Amino acid sequence: MFIHSLQPQSMRLWAFLLSVYWVSFVTYFVLWKSYKHVSNLRATARSTPDFKPEEFAVLVRDVPRSSPDETIKDSVDSYFRALHPNTFYRSMVVTDHTKADKIYLEIEDHKKKIARAEVLYANSKTESNPEGIKPTHRTGFLGLIGKKVDTIEYCSEQIKELLPKLEAEQKTTLRDKQQQAAIVFFNSRSVAASASQTLHAQVFDKWTVMEAPEPRDIIWPNLSRNIYERQIRQVVVYSIVFLTVVFYMVPITAVSAISTLENLRKVLPFLKVVVDRPAIKTVLQAYLPQIALIVFLALLPAFLMFLSKAEGIPSQSHAVRATSGKYFYFVVFNVFLVYTLGKTLFTSLRTILDNANIGVIINMLATSLPGGATFFLTFVALKFFVGYGLELSRLIPLIIFHLKRKYLCKTEDEVKAAWAPGDLGYSTRVPNDMLIATVVLCYSVMAPLIIPFGVAYFALGWLIAKNQVLRVYVPSYESNGRMWPHMHTRIIAALLLYQATMIGVIGLKKFIYSPILAPLLPISFIFAYICHMRFYPAFANTPLEVAQHELKETPNMDAIYTAYIPQCLKPDKLEDLDVFEDAQSHSTSRAPSI
Amino acid sequence: MFIHSLQPQSMRLWAFLLSVYWVSFVTYFVLWKSYKHVSNLRATARSTPDFKPEEFAVLVRDVPRSSPDETIKDSVDSYFRALHPNTFYRSMVVTDHTKADKIYLEIEDHKKKIARAEVLYANSKTESNPEGIKPTHRTGFLGLIGKKVDTIEYCSEQIKELLPKLEAEQKTTLRDKQQQAAIVFFNSRSVAASASQTLHAQVFDKWTVMEAPEPRDIIWPNLSRNIYERQIRQVVVYSIVFLTVVFYMVPITAVSAISTLENLRKVLPFLKVVVDRPAIKTVLQAYLPQIALIVFLALLPAFLMFLSKAEGIPSQSHAVRATSGKYFYFVVFNVFLVYTLGKTLFTSLRTILDNANIGVIINMLATSLPGGATFFLTFVALKFFVGYGLELSRLIPLIIFHLKRKYLCKTEDEVKAAWAPGDLGYSTRVPNDMLIATVVLCYSVMAPLIIPFGVAYFALGWLIAKNQVLRVYVPSYESNGRMWPHMHTRIIAALLLYQATMIGVIGLKKFIYSPILAPLLPISFIFAYICHMRFYPAFANTPLEVAQHELKETPNMDAIYTAYIPQCLKPDKLEDLDVFEDAQSHSTSRAPSI
Repeated sequence: MFIHSLQPQSMRLWAFLLSVYWVSFVTYFVLWKSYKHVSNLRATARSTPDFKPEEFAVLVRDVPRSSPDETIKDSVDSYFRALHPNTFYRSMVVTDHTKADKIYLEIEDHKKKIARAEVLYANSKTESNPEGIKPTHRTGFLGLIGKKVDTIEYCSEQIKELLPKLEAEQKTTLRDKQQQAAIVFFNSRSVAASASQTLHAQVFDKWTVMEAPEPRDIIWPNLSRNIYERQIRQVVVYSIVFLTVVFYMVPITAVSAISTLENLRKVLPFLKVVVDRPAIKTVLQAYLPQIALIVFLALLPAFLMFLSKAEGIPSQSHAVRATSGKYFYFVVFNVFLVYTLGKTLFTSLRTILDNANIGVIINMLATSLPGGATFFLTFVALKFFVGYGLELSRLIPLIIFHLKRKYLCKTEDEVKAAWAPGDLGYSTRVPNDMLIATVVLCYSVMAPLIIPFGVAYFALGWLIAKNQVLRVYVPSYESNGRMWPHMHTRIIAALLLYQATMIGVIGLKKFIYSPILAPLLPISFIFAYICHMRFYPAFANTPLEVAQHELKETPNMDAIYTAYIPQCLKPDKLEDLDVFEDAQSHSTSRAPSI
Repeated sequence: MFIHSLQPQSMRLWAFLLSVYWVSFVTYFVLWKSYKHVSNLRATARSTPDFKPEEFAVLVRDVPRSSPDETIKDSVDSYFRALHPNTFYRSMVVTDHTKADKIYLEIEDHKKKIARAEVLYANSKTESNPEGIKPTHRTGFLGLIGKKVDTIEYCSEQIKELLPKLEAEQKTTLRDKQQQAAIVFFNSRSVAASASQTLHAQVFDKWTVMEAPEPRDIIWPNLSRNIYERQIRQVVVYSIVFLTVVFYMVPITAVSAISTLENLRKVLPFLKVVVDRPAIKTVLQAYLPQIALIVFLALLPAFLMFLSKAEGIPSQSHAVRATSGKYFYFVVFNVFLVYTLGKTLFTSLRTILDNANIGVIINMLATSLPGGATFFLTFVALKFFVGYGLELSRLIPLIIFHLKRKYLCKTEDEVKAAWAPGDLGYSTRVPNDMLIATVVLCYSVMAPLIIPFGVAYFALGWLIAKNQVLRVYVPSYESNGRMWPHMHTRIIAALLLYQATMIGVIGLKKFIYSPILAPLLPISFIFAYICHMRFYPAFANTPLEVAQHELKETPNMDAIYTAYIPQCLKPDKLEDLDVFEDAQSHSTSRAPSI
C-alpha cells in the first residue's frame, strides 16, 4: 500500500494535497496578524489624548412620539436626564433640513458666482480697456436662455433676498421639523461609550442607541428612519442586489436588443450621417451590446451606493462598507465564477437547482477550474502592470485637472477644488482586491505561477496604497479601521471556496486520500469564529478600557456640540448658539444639566 | 376552472388549506401576546423598589493573570476602580472553596447527627427507664463496621476538631486559591446594569462582563473556566448530545445484549434462585431490553443536566434552560418523529442522507404523518388525564414523605426537609409541554379531535401550574422569566415543522393550490425575527429604563456584599467581615472606594 502510494503520480498528488494545507495555514497566519495589528491601531486611534466630538456623543434613533404638547427635543432631554442624571450634557434633535439646505446651497452658489465674476472682471481690465467688461449671464436654464443680467449685481441681490428666507427657514426647521432621532452628548468619553452599548428601553423598537458617527460622516436623512422601515428597506435592497448579481445580463440584453442601429436611426434621425457609413455601421453593430455592458459596469458602483444608502444606514463609511460587500458578490459571481464555469451564472444556477447538492456544485467547480488558469494569470498580471501604473501616475485625474484649469477654473478656490484628490474609493477598490485574493488563492496550487504575481500585486499594492493614502488622498471621514473585519470575513469566504474546490479537484483525480483535506473546512470556520470572537467586539463598540484614557485638556463641550450642527443650520455668529438652542428646545428656563 | 375547483374534494382541500392559515395566525397572536405579557412581568419584577443583591453586581470572568506579586483581587480592584472611579464599590474574587466546603459540610453533618441523637435520647427516657439509652453508632463505613461510640460525645469532639481546621482552610482559600473570576459590586443599580453591557477590554478574551446571577443561583466551580475552555466544552457537549439523540438505541441494545439472563447468572450467582424459575425467566427475558430503556430514560434528564453544567454555564437557571433545550431535541426526534415515521431516527437519517433534499424530507413526513394520528391523540389524552392527576395529588411525594417520617425522620428539621416540595423541575416539564404543543399543532388540521384535548391540556395546565407554583413549589432561584424566550423559539420551530408538513400533506393529494401555503414559512421567520428583535434584548440585559427605578430605601451595601459570600466561607460572626476582606485583599490600608 505504502509502496504503491509512492509512485510518481501519487507523489505529485501528495505534494498537491500538502500545499493546500500549507497555503491555508499561511493565510490563517497572515489574517490573524493583520487583525491583531489593525485592532491595535484602532485602539491607539480611539485613545489619543486629543478628543473627537463623536467620542462624547451617542446617536439615538426611534425616539417615540411624545404627547402633542411636548416637543421631541423635550422628551429626549427628560428621558436622558432621568437615566443619566449626572453625566448628560445636552441633546440635539435631528431635523429635516432639506429645504434650509437648498436655500443655503443656493446662497453658496451665488457667492461662488460672484467670486468668479469678480476675477473675470479684474482680468478683463487690460491696459486697452481699463474699465473692463462686467460679466453677465442669462437667468434661464443653464444660463442659455432668459434675461441677460449683470452677474455681480444680480447675485448680490439674490443673496440679500435669500438670507432672511434662510433665517426664517432655519427657525421653522428647528421648531417644526424635528425628526424622531437625536444626538445626545455626555460630559465624558467613557460615559458616552458605555451609554452607546447599554440597552435603554424595555421595548427594543424605541430609543435605539448606538455610537455616533463623525459629524461629516453622517447621512442626515437616514437618521430618522424607524427600525421597521430599516428592516423592510434592507430586505428589499438585498432582493434587488440578488437579482442584479444573478440576472444582470437580462436588462443589458434587452437594452441591446432594442437599441439596434435601425431603432436608433428612427429615434435619433441626426445619427443617420454617421450610421449610414458601412464601416462605422459594422463596428457599431458589433460593439453596441458591449457598450451597454460597459455603461452598466461603470454605473454599477454608483447604483450599489444608492441602494446601500437607501437601506437607512446612518453613516457614509458604513454605506461604503455595504457597497463594497455588494460589489464583492457581483465580481466574485460574475467575474470569478462565470469565467471559471464558462457560462453565465444564470445557466449554472439552473444546473445547480436541478441537482441541489453541495457535491454537485463542488464537482462542477472542480471540473471547470483548471480551464480558467490562463485567463486569471493574465488578469492578475494585467492588474499588476497596468492598474498600479495608472494609480501611481494618476494620469486621468491629471488630464482632467489640466482641462479644468484651462477652461473652467477662474478663482483660487476652484483650482483647489479641481486638484483635490478626494477619497480612496474603498467601495470599488476593496472588492477588486478581494477578487484578486480569491483568484490567487484558488489557483495557487493548480497554477503556482500565479503566486509570484499575487505576492507582487499585494506587496507593491501595500507600498503604493500607503503612499497614496498618506500623501495623495484626503479622507472625508474616519471610520477607525472598521473596514477590516469586513475584508477579513470575505477573505475567509474566499479561503473556504478555495478549500472546497481543492477537495473536488483532488477527488476528481481518483486520489483516495483527498478526504484528508476535509478537516480544513471546519478549521477555517473555527478560525473565523475565534477571530470574530476575539477581535470583532472592539470594532463594533469602543471598549471602556480605551475610552477611559486621559485627555490632554478639558474638552470644550460647546465646540463638540457645534461640530454636529449641520452647515445650513449654523447661525452666522457662533455667539448666537443660545438662540439656536432656544429655538430648538423652548426651554431656557430649564436648570443646567450638570 | 373555478367551477371545477368547487367539487366536494376540492372544497375539503380548500377548507384544509385555509385552516392551516387560521391555526398559524392564532399561534402568532398567542405567542405575541404571551411574549409581551412575560416581558412586562419581567420589567415589573426587575424594577421593584425592593433591591436584590444581583442588581448591584456584575460577574467578571477571564480575569487576566497579573504579575506574580499582585493578587487577582488587587488587579480586579485596580482595573475596575480605574474604569468606574466614582461608582465602583467593592469586588469579591471567586475562590476554589471545594475543600473548605467539604469541611463545612462535615461539621453540618455532625451537628445534624447530634440533634438527631438528642431527640432519640430524649425519647428513650420512658417512665420505666428514666436514664434513657445514649445513642451510639459505629465510626466505619455507613455506620455498619468499626468502633462503637457515643454519638453525642463523638460528634461534639469531631466538631471541636474540625472548627479550627475550617478556619485555617478558609484563610488559605481566600489567600491562595483565588480564581480568574470575580463579582464586582457597584453603588447603584443603573451603573451595574450599564457596566454589565459594556465591553471592557480591548481584547475580548479578557475581562468578560455579564449580569451577575442570584447568589443562590451561581454554580461556583464554573465561574473560573476561561472563554476558550467554555467554547471547547460547548462543542464537545453538543457533539455528545447529538450522538445521544440520534444513536441512543445503540448503547441500550448493547447493554441488553450483554445483560442476558445467562450472563447475569454468571456474574451475580445469587440471582440463580429467582432466575431459574421458568415463569420469572420468561418475563425477565422479554422485558430486560425495556428495563434498560426505562433506566436510560429515567437517567436522561440528570445526564443532560450534568452535560449542561459541564459546558461552563455560570448559573443553575441557565443550566436548566440548556438541559430543557437538549431534552426537547430528544423528545421531538425520538418521540414525535420516530412514532410518526415508524422507524428509528437512525434509519430515517440514512434515507435522508441518501437523498439530501428538503423535498424528500417533507414528503417523507407528509406520507407518514396521518398514520400517527391515533397514537398521538391517545398520547395527549393520557397526559391530560393521568399527568395532571398525579401532579395535583402529588401522590408519590406523599407516599415518600410518610415513609420517611415513619422510619427516618427524628427531628423537626428532618420532617421539614422531607416535606419540602423543591423546584418546579423546568428541565423536563418544559420540553414535555413543548412536545404536546408540537403534536397538537401538527395534527390540528389532520385530526381536529386533538384540538379540544390540546386546549384542555394547556388550559387546565395553566390553572394547575399556577396553583402549584404559588402554593406548592419553592423556587430555589429566580431567573425573572428568562425561560420564556427559550420556549418561544421552540414553539416557532414546532410551527415551522407543522407548516412544512402541511405543504407536503396537501401537495400529496395532488391539489394544485397547495403552494398557496408556501408564504407561511417566510411569514413565520419574519414573525420570529420581529419578536426576537422587539422583546429579546430586554431579557438578555436589563434596560436602563428599568434599572433606574427608585429604591424604597438606601441599599445596605454590606448586606449585598455578604449575600455573595459562599456559606462555607462566611465567618461565624458577621462583625468579622473586615477580617474576611483583609484576608482576601491584603489591603486594609487602601483608601475607601467611594
